[in-house]
Amino acid sequence: MKRPLSLQKLIDALRKLPGVGPRSARRMAEAVLAMDYEEAREIGRAIVRAKKAIRPCSVCGINTEQDPCEICSDETRDRSFVCVVESAEDVIAFESSGSHEGVYHVLGGTINYTRGSGPEKLNLASLFSRAGAGGIKEVLIATNPTLEGESTAAYIVKRLKNAGIKLTRPARGLPRGADIDFLDSETISIAHKERQEAFFLNDEQ
Amino acid sequence: MKRPLSLQKLIDALRKLPGVGPRSARRMAEAVLAMDYEEAREIGRAIVRAKKAIRPCSVCGINTEQDPCEICSDETRDRSFVCVVESAEDVIAFESSGSHEGVYHVLGGTINYTRGSGPEKLNLASLFSRAGAGGIKEVLIATNPTLEGESTAAYIVKRLKNAGIKLTRPARGLPRGADIDFLDSETISIAHKERQEAFFLNDEQ
Repeated sequence: MKRPLSLQKLIDALRKLPGVGPRSARRMAEAVLAMDYEEAREIGRAIVRAKKAIRPCSVCGINTEQDPCEICSDETRDRSFVCVVESAEDVIAFESSGSHEGVYHVLGGTINYTRGSGPEKLNLASLFSRAGAGGIKEVLIATNPTLEGESTAAYIVKRLKNAGIKLTRPARGLPRGADIDFLDSETISIAHKERQEAFFLNDEQ
Repeated sequence: MKRPLSLQKLIDALRKLPGVGPRSARRMAEAVLAMDYEEAREIGRAIVRAKKAIRPCSVCGINTEQDPCEICSDETRDRSFVCVVESAEDVIAFESSGSHEGVYHVLGGTINYTRGSGPEKLNLASLFSRAGAGGIKEVLIATNPTLEGESTAAYIVKRLKNAGIKLTRPARGLPRGADIDFLDSETISIAHKERQEAFFLNDEQ
């Protein structure tokens, strides 16, 4: 006996999601069958609705239901300061931190030649044309501190270094709550090399 | 800035699937947005279609698009021999092994009082009424060899022991390909106690 066709199709469909292997797809499919019809339909609908409603912002590439996005159309944001990130979720993280008052540019990934993801696959042409259009003073290249993120940052630096724009990278060091003996030695080295004058609140009194 | 509403709803919907935490839901949602519209719609549809098409078999509880299911309505299967399993996926596993020529009964879980899953939550009443209806010679109680599986099996044995039916459990021992030094001591003990006369193909020549 095989699985009913519609169940097999559901398992195959779920496997297209990232991180879902054969076992988890089967567990998810079983969970769907155990749900109320309304609840299962809500998941199915959420997929189709999000896919229908959301487009990348034509300026910065953020996931948005309006174009240009909320941030690009906000007059109070500093449009001369662009934070370049790999993914739209990185924007959510920066926004939650409240640290960036400028605008964003979402690359949609990193350069990775071995996976066939060259610069032309990323949202880079529009970054360079934004930079070329003038009005940008600083580009903070906030790709992840990984091999791919670094080489993508290096590529952007190479392309923009003569554009008369200040190019920056986020500070590196120990993340809050880190256990130093579990951190990689590159981070420890950077944290050591870039060490800061120690001061605590009571030093300032 | 928050996520667009339809994206947040998609993330919330995906989190209802088992094993999907906040991070993986976000990754999945990003993957959905990166898909072609057709591909995303296919996933949404597969969920709704499977949920619509599949019902538990009214006899054995298997996931099925026809009722009674393929196995229960197959005249060549031995209806006097019922294999009781926890989930419909266990049936697929038994069927792939080709070992069972009888029929099945899917419990839909195990007894777990601490999780509020008493016998009444399982597909047990219909098992006992099948057993009471006569015609069944053997019930192989193939719940998983876990604490919950064992106690569920014990409950079934207690309820059926006076029904004049042979009650069996699958053999326990070393699984194929096992590394003995990674196996739990219970399995090793059972494999030792239930050891079999050694024979190899050349012994039979």
